[in-house]
Amino acid sequence: MSEYNQPIGGNDLARFSGPNTFMRLPQAQALDGLDVAILGIPMDIGTSWRSGTRFGPKQIRAESAMIRPYNMATGTAPFDSLQIADIGDLAINTFSLADSLRIIKESYDAILTHDVIPVAMGGDHSITLPILRAIAARHGPVALVHVDAHADVNDEMFGERETHGTVFRRAYEEGLIQPDKTYQIGIRGSGYAATDFTEAQGWGFQHFPAWELWHRSLKPLGDEIRRDIGDRPVYVTYDIDSLDPAYAPGTGTPEIGGLTTPQALELIQALRGLKIVGCDLVEVSPPYDPSGNTALTAANLLYELLCVLPGVRAR
Amino acid sequence: MSEYNQPIGGNDLARFSGPNTFMRLPQAQALDGLDVAILGIPMDIGTSWRSGTRFGPKQIRAESAMIRPYNMATGTAPFDSLQIADIGDLAINTFSLADSLRIIKESYDAILTHDVIPVAMGGDHSITLPILRAIAARHGPVALVHVDAHADVNDEMFGERETHGTVFRRAYEEGLIQPDKTYQIGIRGSGYAATDFTEAQGWGFQHFPAWELWHRSLKPLGDEIRRDIGDRPVYVTYDIDSLDPAYAPGTGTPEIGGLTTPQALELIQALRGLKIVGCDLVEVSPPYDPSGNTALTAANLLYELLCVLPGVRAR
Amino acid sequence: MSEYNQPIGGNDLARFSGPNTFMRLPQAQALDGLDVAILGIPMDIGTSWRSGTRFGPKQIRAESAMIRPYNMATGTAPFDSLQIADIGDLAINTFSLADSLRIIKESYDAILTHDVIPVAMGGDHSITLPILRAIAARHGPVALVHVDAHADVNDEMFGERETHGTVFRRAYEEGLIQPDKTYQIGIRGSGYAATDFTEAQGWGFQHFPAWELWHRSLKPLGDEIRRDIGDRPVYVTYDIDSLDPAYAPGTGTPEIGGLTTPQALELIQALRGLKIVGCDLVEVSPPYDPSGNTALTAANLLYELLCVLPGVRAR
Amino acid sequence: MSEYNQPIGGNDLARFSGPNTFMRLPQAQALDGLDVAILGIPMDIGTSWRSGTRFGPKQIRAESAMIRPYNMATGTAPFDSLQIADIGDLAINTFSLADSLRIIKESYDAILTHDVIPVAMGGDHSITLPILRAIAARHGPVALVHVDAHADVNDEMFGERETHGTVFRRAYEEGLIQPDKTYQIGIRGSGYAATDFTEAQGWGFQHFPAWELWHRSLKPLGDEIRRDIGDRPVYVTYDIDSLDPAYAPGTGTPEIGGLTTPQALELIQALRGLKIVGCDLVEVSPPYDPSGNTALTAANLLYELLCVLPGVRAR
Amino acid sequence: MSEYNQPIGGNDLARFSGPNTFMRLPQAQALDGLDVAILGIPMDIGTSWRSGTRFGPKQIRAESAMIRPYNMATGTAPFDSLQIADIGDLAINTFSLADSLRIIKESYDAILTHDVIPVAMGGDHSITLPILRAIAARHGPVALVHVDAHADVNDEMFGERETHGTVFRRAYEEGLIQPDKTYQIGIRGSGYAATDFTEAQGWGFQHFPAWELWHRSLKPLGDEIRRDIGDRPVYVTYDIDSLDPAYAPGTGTPEIGGLTTPQALELIQALRGLKIVGCDLVEVSPPYDPSGNTALTAANLLYELLCVLPGVRAR
Amino acid sequence: MSEYNQPIGGNDLARFSGPNTFMRLPQAQALDGLDVAILGIPMDIGTSWRSGTRFGPKQIRAESAMIRPYNMATGTAPFDSLQIADIGDLAINTFSLADSLRIIKESYDAILTHDVIPVAMGGDHSITLPILRAIAARHGPVALVHVDAHADVNDEMFGERETHGTVFRRAYEEGLIQPDKTYQIGIRGSGYAATDFTEAQGWGFQHFPAWELWHRSLKPLGDEIRRDIGDRPVYVTYDIDSLDPAYAPGTGTPEIGGLTTPQALELIQALRGLKIVGCDLVEVSPPYDPSGNTALTAANLLYELLCVLPGVRAR
Repeated sequence: MSEYNQPIGGNDLARFSGPNTFMRLPQAQALDGLDVAILGIPMDIGTSWRSGTRFGPKQIRAESAMIRPYNMATGTAPFDSLQIADIGDLAINTFSLADSLRIIKESYDAILTHDVIPVAMGGDHSITLPILRAIAARHGPVALVHVDAHADVNDEMFGERETHGTVFRRAYEEGLIQPDKTYQIGIRGSGYAATDFTEAQGWGFQHFPAWELWHRSLKPLGDEIRRDIGDRPVYVTYDIDSLDPAYAPGTGTPEIGGLTTPQALELIQALRGLKIVGCDLVEVSPPYDPSGNTALTAANLLYELLCVLPGVRAR
Repeated sequence: MSEYNQPIGGNDLARFSGPNTFMRLPQAQALDGLDVAILGIPMDIGTSWRSGTRFGPKQIRAESAMIRPYNMATGTAPFDSLQIADIGDLAINTFSLADSLRIIKESYDAILTHDVIPVAMGGDHSITLPILRAIAARHGPVALVHVDAHADVNDEMFGERETHGTVFRRAYEEGLIQPDKTYQIGIRGSGYAATDFTEAQGWGFQHFPAWELWHRSLKPLGDEIRRDIGDRPVYVTYDIDSLDPAYAPGTGTPEIGGLTTPQALELIQALRGLKIVGCDLVEVSPPYDPSGNTALTAANLLYELLCVLPGVRAR
Repeated sequence: MSEYNQPIGGNDLARFSGPNTFMRLPQAQALDGLDVAILGIPMDIGTSWRSGTRFGPKQIRAESAMIRPYNMATGTAPFDSLQIADIGDLAINTFSLADSLRIIKESYDAILTHDVIPVAMGGDHSITLPILRAIAARHGPVALVHVDAHADVNDEMFGERETHGTVFRRAYEEGLIQPDKTYQIGIRGSGYAATDFTEAQGWGFQHFPAWELWHRSLKPLGDEIRRDIGDRPVYVTYDIDSLDPAYAPGTGTPEIGGLTTPQALELIQALRGLKIVGCDLVEVSPPYDPSGNTALTAANLLYELLCVLPGVRAR
Repeated sequence: MSEYNQPIGGNDLARFSGPNTFMRLPQAQALDGLDVAILGIPMDIGTSWRSGTRFGPKQIRAESAMIRPYNMATGTAPFDSLQIADIGDLAINTFSLADSLRIIKESYDAILTHDVIPVAMGGDHSITLPILRAIAARHGPVALVHVDAHADVNDEMFGERETHGTVFRRAYEEGLIQPDKTYQIGIRGSGYAATDFTEAQGWGFQHFPAWELWHRSLKPLGDEIRRDIGDRPVYVTYDIDSLDPAYAPGTGTPEIGGLTTPQALELIQALRGLKIVGCDLVEVSPPYDPSGNTALTAANLLYELLCVLPGVRAR
Repeated sequence: MSEYNQPIGGNDLARFSGPNTFMRLPQAQALDGLDVAILGIPMDIGTSWRSGTRFGPKQIRAESAMIRPYNMATGTAPFDSLQIADIGDLAINTFSLADSLRIIKESYDAILTHDVIPVAMGGDHSITLPILRAIAARHGPVALVHVDAHADVNDEMFGERETHGTVFRRAYEEGLIQPDKTYQIGIRGSGYAATDFTEAQGWGFQHFPAWELWHRSLKPLGDEIRRDIGDRPVYVTYDIDSLDPAYAPGTGTPEIGGLTTPQALELIQALRGLKIVGCDLVEVSPPYDPSGNTALTAANLLYELLCVLPGVRAR
Repeated sequence: MSEYNQPIGGNDLARFSGPNTFMRLPQAQALDGLDVAILGIPMDIGTSWRSGTRFGPKQIRAESAMIRPYNMATGTAPFDSLQIADIGDLAINTFSLADSLRIIKESYDAILTHDVIPVAMGGDHSITLPILRAIAARHGPVALVHVDAHADVNDEMFGERETHGTVFRRAYEEGLIQPDKTYQIGIRGSGYAATDFTEAQGWGFQHFPAWELWHRSLKPLGDEIRRDIGDRPVYVTYDIDSLDPAYAPGTGTPEIGGLTTPQALELIQALRGLKIVGCDLVEVSPPYDPSGNTALTAANLLYELLCVLPGVRAR
């Protein structure tokens, strides 16, 4: 192949064997020379209903062992174009949400002193706020592709302003994102009032509720978003609960009537060509995933995200 | 909000907390002043394959705690328009199907002395026969929207005439429903002969087998049914096994090739404007629902049914 | 009915009761007079990721008890047209893949001395190679309808040439199949290089990757394949992992973005009229099927295959 | 070996293969020549809390496939001394408890016209009442070894006199058992009043509550009971919930603080030499047995019961 | 019975039915007139390994529905002697451990203005620190019966001084307990140094490690502790992980080699006669309890604790 | 601490985080300087009933993250005395049992060129035969402590001489072990004839069937064995199915009436002082371990084995 890091091949070592890194990639101790750093943020104390996402990174890595390096659908092979490694988990403080968010912010600040794209495995969605703070400090306000069942624009939850349900209001208020280049895709379910959605629309957020997406390909939507973003730096945050619980039961706040995995793949594949500066996949809760397929799906979506990062070539 | 009963809010009390009523609504001791009475009929002795639906009401209530009061898709807020409460469970006799059906009939007779819409959580589908007897005694023969994998028009099962598989033949014979305004939606699977379906069609029943509904929106079908029913009183009986087992594995007699939750939502939403006089959701079997998502789906469909009841306004 | 074997009826003996044969058909000790022989090949030692398919036949039979004899969608009733029985399991050697493949070949040779269509329940996909060897010895090179997430055309795995991932390369090399009448449907996921697919296309294999099939009916594809095959003898091999993990989680190497059960039913129903000389359904792994619905799906697809065998009449 | 029925050997056919009879014994169509008839009574409509025992016989048979014919601890080999077969399931009426109890009684009457020992796999405990009626009609009032967490001596449940909680009061009232040779072993938990136990003691029942049996061998107790019974005909009814839920979680009404499997084996082994005229093992509920070990335990206890039947020799 | 609150009887309403209060007791809105207040503290953010205890109270209540009011082993009937009700859950702040501990303290202060014994269902063990603060403020330093796999006497965890692993060091430092009347029972497993245990012994804590308790009755130990405490006010804190994982798998930090449920019952029963001023049962984690038996065990131990409260008479 | 490898501490990195090595020890690339090498042998193709042990090493490592370095019961701290690392998994050939056994033998030969104690995580029990071949080549015939439900002394299974059921007959025949210093502990269950046990006793094997060990401490037995072995080199092979299924449900061939974890700990702790030259723990099958506690138990027993290795000091 090349001088790049490669996953361990299935014929070199049985897939149920080997290190528990993402796709059995090398574990990196340092960031030098890396193009992409995959990391875990194992946390569930920012969640309001079911917990368990603290085991998300471990389970996603376990299920990722089955993925091979070449993407048959798109012809991309991320490990042939980019130096990618798993850099392990952030050492969050599992007893304090506030302190953990601080740790994430500082860790990302350190990571972003390198020219590397961080790809995070959550963890609940509260991790995205400190990530965006660091991303914006490095890249300025970014476009945001936010795939989720929920808009996560509450003002407070139990009086707290930084939880998994308030992330994108804070991001808007703090100027971390470009509001009119913020796309919330797959949102649905129940809320408290129409303003749950309309207020964010007033800031410029573009909403693509799940019910407008049923029964059809998301490639056109993805193409439209890609064109709309152009060459702006963009962050992609992928909440696994954007998928229907039939496809991803193992999550903290499941909502029926969601997207399908074909739609998820279409959407991500359409983002190829964007200047993605970071991404995350959040809210995988293994205790609620008896078949293990939610983590498997998460691993595959992360792989698909790797395939659309800047610099990945098709062959 | 208003003088109406409201669910406990997620920021007032954590969603994993509080009473195990539907959506954490108040539990009513009396029916006076109620517009809608939600009740459980915890029973599984009318079922022919897997049991377990006796725990259906308990599990549906548990999962309903995550639902918020406002319907983002339709703008409806049932608790702002109607006085709705959970009135608990009927005290069925778990050792005798016949006696339990009698208890259900008498309980519904008592409920229907009030001007209230009963919304039942099953239980197996045999509960719908005594319900329809009481409904017809109160409202006359009703139109029937019956969403199910099975037509439930057997004559006998093991020599018994009142089981979860004979309900709608009995309802037809007893004149409880208007046969030409009876819509059986989602039926499929295997049977004993073509007459399993054609005989009921001869009575006037309108069949919409699942295989005619795949890959498309059910809004047109729902609209057509709504127009066809007009202002007749209508009862809606929703068997969770109408859904594909991918969406609702936790049920007694699953059949592959079923509907999706997007289709279920489309169908129910199209019923808004009908004069619904009662409804039920049946056949949720928690022991076969390791992820809990069947009960979650049931809770959401019941919520969606609340949103289309007469008198619910959008805002 | 007739002089044919019939499944035990649900009103003669409760469905949770009776023999653990497929659909509670009679167990045959001899092949004389049979048109179709259903058999189990309980094996998982040819698999590369999760094991457990050794319990596939047992679980498929258990779930098949719910299926009734008449196909409501197509009007077919296989047991009224054909003499069908369950002939039990092959006595494979669970400690040796090579020896087991030999046993399967010899068993099929013996079966095919009768004018009977063998319908196998796997087991992992490695069983299909010795089956095809026996089929080709009896019928010459056959057309092949291969529904699967994977092309299974590896040359070697850990140095072994006969595993569940090398079946169809061996079948091609050995002239067991007609390459230009070989249809691989539902393939997807990740691989090692574009040649994973293109090499087999060079042999003549026709590929219908999953991503070209999303969001639409497979009836047109099935019709096209049926016309293309014409009156050639055809073997159908159905890997349950062709389905999306939402529909069939209980399998050894699940891949997201797969087919749905409606599509599976459409595809199989379109094959009616072909000269099917054998078929199998493989890769059901009960330990990974907490809801039991993968085996239920497998049982239903096998039933649907029975309904399209030559000689089955509709009524 | 002999002219006796033998289980299929593990080296003749892999244990995950073969018929789903108890221990893979032959299935008998007729009772002639049998010494012991093993049968299933798949029923759960007599239960008051969790259902699911309708799948008990099927699951016990499935797990019994691992048991080999020779008892290493006691040197007994039941299949070398007795002609034993699985005679399938009784065709109960799953919609009527009363009718099912009638069917069981009549079926046992027919069985007992032969000189055969019936060994039943339940089903809930209500099956034991009609069994005892038939047993007493054939053998007169019998001694009763009743291992259970509950005394099952309620007078009524929901007004019903024949349920899984009233069996032994009815048996006493109807003179089916010898009260002073009735041993209730393992009873414990909560009740309504001291009379729950003392009333039956007044009839002569001998009580061995679980708390008197903790931390010690049950061999002395078994020896004492065996001596006390002498050569009277005796029926053994074994409720799996006599075991602690750690050992047998898959049951309808689990009670903590129960017996262990070593104690269960000691107790049964001590019964060797008694004139056992029938036995049953009840209340295995597979939906509540995620590990499958409750059914495995039940299968082993039934095997151990076979090993102490009259006429079984040690070698 | 009496003027006291009684659980709903199993023959009045099927046990799978009715309110989700502890043992289906009445839900109290006010504390006036209560002798015992059962409450839930649904929290898991103080835990270091597996989460999920936020669903503990809900699941314990669900499983408690099977318990009847009279204790067959001890002849006690708590509801005949004391006015007992379920007062619901505390409204903790699920995003902040510190704030939740404050809420618990203030809630207990309010509760303890009444002459009522609070019985808490956790939640993780961190809840016991604020409870002891309130208890000590009301009753002075108390004797402490602490049954647990862990001593929970860490100084800090991730720099935090108030977590589920530091409770009893804080309680000691703050003078909330009487160190020489503090009994830690069942402790075991691995640690960091001998001082993990010896330091607390230096404060006066009495240690009864699990390995000294195996294979024997805990009645003597319980008797000894009861005599040693005398008439001091005593608080009982029961961590479900004191039990072996065979008995209680559903907990956050399981340790092998633990106690059995017979031992747990013996220990609690021996405490009768003590002046118990409060108790709790913590660390039940339903997502890790696939059989539901951990919550069942917890419910039964709580019931057993009710049976030994001051004022409960035997009959 | 020291210059020795230490597990990552729970306060340095949350336990649900970090590398998936045993106890989060460093992963070693080379054997130089190691005293103990922990390795995985992920294999299940030598098993006769349930498969799944190929995931054993992965799951044992995952659960081992909760274990701390100091043994509270014995005062031992293996990582303070010995240089211990996880060296990963052997690259077995998952399609060929014979080839895998060859690979294991050659790998152990290579490992044993170093002065290191190999500690293996299985995998099914067939791995122990090639291990013993290498061990005997290095150390001569060894004493053998074999804890298991089964004697594993079959001659053949399906005509194969090297499977998980024939290991110790082969070891005896090949002179790998000292027959009169071979202790089989916990054996029980059913077999084919008395010779299943007596033949091996004739070779000198010492049998301690489970039924002789119930209800008592195994310390005396362990002490006796330790004295009997003296200073001979000894290999310890621990089959998790020696434990009762209540304690270890997740295994391939569970047998009721087994040992408890207290007994397992007592037995291992008594081995301290022996010249252990290697050990293994086998037959953990994660797909059959819904609670995860079998792997947790395995991890703890492996830790306990580390604590009794030569050179480990107490403090």
